[in-house]
Parts: sequence; structure tokens; C-alpha cells
Amino acid sequence: MTAAIIVAAGRGTRMGPSVDKIFLEVAGKPIVVHAWERFAAHPMIDQIVLVVKDGFQSAFHDLAKQFPSHLSRKPYSIVIGGSERQHSVWNGLQALDSKVELVAIQDGARPCTSSILISQTLLAAQEMGAAVAAQRATDTVKQSDDGRTITHHLDRSHLWTVQTPQAFRVEVIRKALRFVMEQNLTVTDDTAACAFIEQPVRLIESTSPNPKATAPSDLPILESLLAQL
Amino acid sequence: MTAAIIVAAGRGTRMGPSVDKIFLEVAGKPIVVHAWERFAAHPMIDQIVLVVKDGFQSAFHDLAKQFPSHLSRKPYSIVIGGSERQHSVWNGLQALDSKVELVAIQDGARPCTSSILISQTLLAAQEMGAAVAAQRATDTVKQSDDGRTITHHLDRSHLWTVQTPQAFRVEVIRKALRFVMEQNLTVTDDTAACAFIEQPVRLIESTSPNPKATAPSDLPILESLLAQL
Repeated sequence: MTAAIIVAAGRGTRMGPSVDKIFLEVAGKPIVVHAWERFAAHPMIDQIVLVVKDGFQSAFHDLAKQFPSHLSRKPYSIVIGGSERQHSVWNGLQALDSKVELVAIQDGARPCTSSILISQTLLAAQEMGAAVAAQRATDTVKQSDDGRTITHHLDRSHLWTVQTPQAFRVEVIRKALRFVMEQNLTVTDDTAACAFIEQPVRLIESTSPNPKATAPSDLPILESLLAQL
Repeated sequence: MTAAIIVAAGRGTRMGPSVDKIFLEVAGKPIVVHAWERFAAHPMIDQIVLVVKDGFQSAFHDLAKQFPSHLSRKPYSIVIGGSERQHSVWNGLQALDSKVELVAIQDGARPCTSSILISQTLLAAQEMGAAVAAQRATDTVKQSDDGRTITHHLDRSHLWTVQTPQAFRVEVIRKALRFVMEQNLTVTDDTAACAFIEQPVRLIESTSPNPKATAPSDLPILESLLAQL
């Protein structure tokens, strides 16, 4: 079996203190509903786990009732997020059916992910153990060890920015996150945990826009991208 | 004396084959006019050099006539761009008044650059030799040496994405670019050339949005940012 964990427990401070970005509506639905739908509609996915902030459980059950034609296609469960992303993902992993061998982890604030990208990432994870949707870096990136001067001019042709889905064989992501938490480390994305257990991660090039909502100025872009899907 | 070189000779292929993005209008003016105005209005700037595609010289003279209240505040000259950015910048440097000791290089497609960012970048370049506007990386960036698997999980807290202005003491950028061209190297931004002559580059944190127009979906954002200036 294959599952999706949708991480919808972020703080989203760049949207302003009182706004939870994933509930903002674009193209007629909250952002998180779009993200959820992409996996509910995907033929490889058997189970969906939503990781939410404590107190928001009923809001998500309400969304499932409000958009039943899409969201009720697959069984879902709701778990509470942790203090960091890695704890949220860990909690999501605990809620998987014992038969789930492959899992895709998705940002709840990323509503435009294509069906083909989900398939490719899952298939690569099945083969390799871990895979992540990514695009070639378009910005020029520099490294600074002191935050004041450039210490390393990185070669842009070797740089990728990672997105979600990030997909794993369940045993791989469990082992990687267990290691990270036992060592009291913090990782900013799920594939970074793989480095600690020497698990290689395949890059899957995302060929259509797959942005995450981070600031209010992103909403018009998401609106126009979703209108084209 | 201090000058600005505005690089307006890019190909802009992401906007589509027939569109030169810098001529697209946002907030009532072509994008490049906004970029030009920011420097024409800046009290530290004495001279402006526009680097343009061959055949576009008269289009830029027309813009100066069309928006005289802003653009005619500072003397400007127009030179033709080269095959790569470094050649365009080099051509721009040749057109500087011999008294110019400090130069800011600006993307013609970057219309929202603040006056304070221009000042800070120039002052740091005066002190240090080279400085660049930058912001802390918000994306998670990975390095891949083969384009297929992640070879290095970079620490985001040490990563910056660079913008323009990139500012230099004129002798520094001349020396750096001369070295790059003599060695037949290609650099994707002007500060990268500094690495070859061991010239340190100061990062100046850009605290307000300073995006570059790269795709049609950027235009609504630029419109709303310019409306707030």
C-alpha cells in the first residue's frame, strides 16, 4: 500500500500573525483542499494522513464534508503536528496502516502538484528508497559562513531547490527520522534526514510550476496556475 | 564620481520568444524605466550607462524623451551588450567617465530596488571593494554533481540569493572581469568574477522585495509592489 502524509501544521508567519495560509481560498477552495485533492484523486494512493495543528481537527473534518466529491475518495486520518516539521512527519508516520510500504510527504501549502510528479516521485522512491521533486535553481546562490561576506560562490548548474512531494520507502524515512531525533538534530526537509543514514535521494525534475504559498503576494500566481490545470 | 550600469540586453526567453520583458509595462511604465529611474533619482549617482541590445538604441532614447521628468535628471549613455552578461558589463565599464571610481550594476528587469539598498551597496563597495544586495535563501537547496541524486544537503542558514545592485570600486570589477575574459571563463553574476582575484564581497541584506521579472506570472506581483513604493 501507498500513503500520502499532508503536512498542514505550519505556522506560516510570513502571511501575518493571524492568517493560516493553508485556509486561504484560491480558485474557489482553501489551498490545503487543493493539495489534499491531488492525492485523494491519485490512483497510486490508498490512504491519506493529515497532520494538523491541535484544535484544527474539526476544521479538517468539515472540509472533507464540504468537498466530498474529491476528498472522500480515499480514507483519511488526522493527527496532531509536533514542534518541528520532523516531529509532524514522525506523527504522520505513526498513523499509517501497517501495510503501507511507500509514502509521499506533501506540504499542505503546495496546491498545484501534478499527478505525474506524484507518480514519478513515488516510483523513484520505490526503486531507490528516497526521492524528491525539485527544480534547477534559477537564483544565484552564495554561501556565507559569517553572514557578512561571501565565502563560496556556488556553481548554479549543480544546484536544485527541493519541493514536495518527498517520497520514501516507509522503513527508510522511519530509520532516518529516528536517527535525527535520537541525536537531537533538526532538519529543514525530510530528505536531509537521509544524509545521516547514508540513504541516497533521487531528484525528480518538476517540469510544471509547483509553488508553495508563503506570502500574500503568491496568491494571484496560485490562482492563475490553478485556473490552467 | 559614481555611476550606474543598467544591463538591459538580456534575452528573457522565459517570457516567450517575442517578448522583451523589460519593455512590458507595470504601474504605468516599462519595467526598465522603473529600474533606470531608481538610479537617475539617487543622490549618489552621477552618470548612467545603459547596456542594450543592438537595434534598441533609439527605443531607449525615446524612453528618455517620454519620461523626461525622471530620466533626464542624470546624464546617460547607451552602449551595445555582448554575448554574455560579463561582456555586457565590460562594455558598460568602457563607457564610464574617467573620473568614475565607484559603480553599481543593475538588472534592467529589476524595477523595485530601494534607494537605501543602492546607498548601502555603494558604501560597502567603497569600503570593501565589492558588495552585493542579497537575501537569505528561503528555498531548501541541494547540490547534485550528476543531476540525478543529491550529493550535498546544503545548510540553508548559510545560503544567500544574490540580486542587484552589485557594486564595485571600478578598478576591482575591471581587474576581475579582465581576468575572467582572458581565461575564457564564464560567470553568471558579477561578484563571481571577484573570486578569481581573491576580492572579498560584502553581502547587503535586502529588506524589502527586490524581484526580477523573469516570467509573465511575475507581473502582478511587480504591479502590487510598485504601487506600494
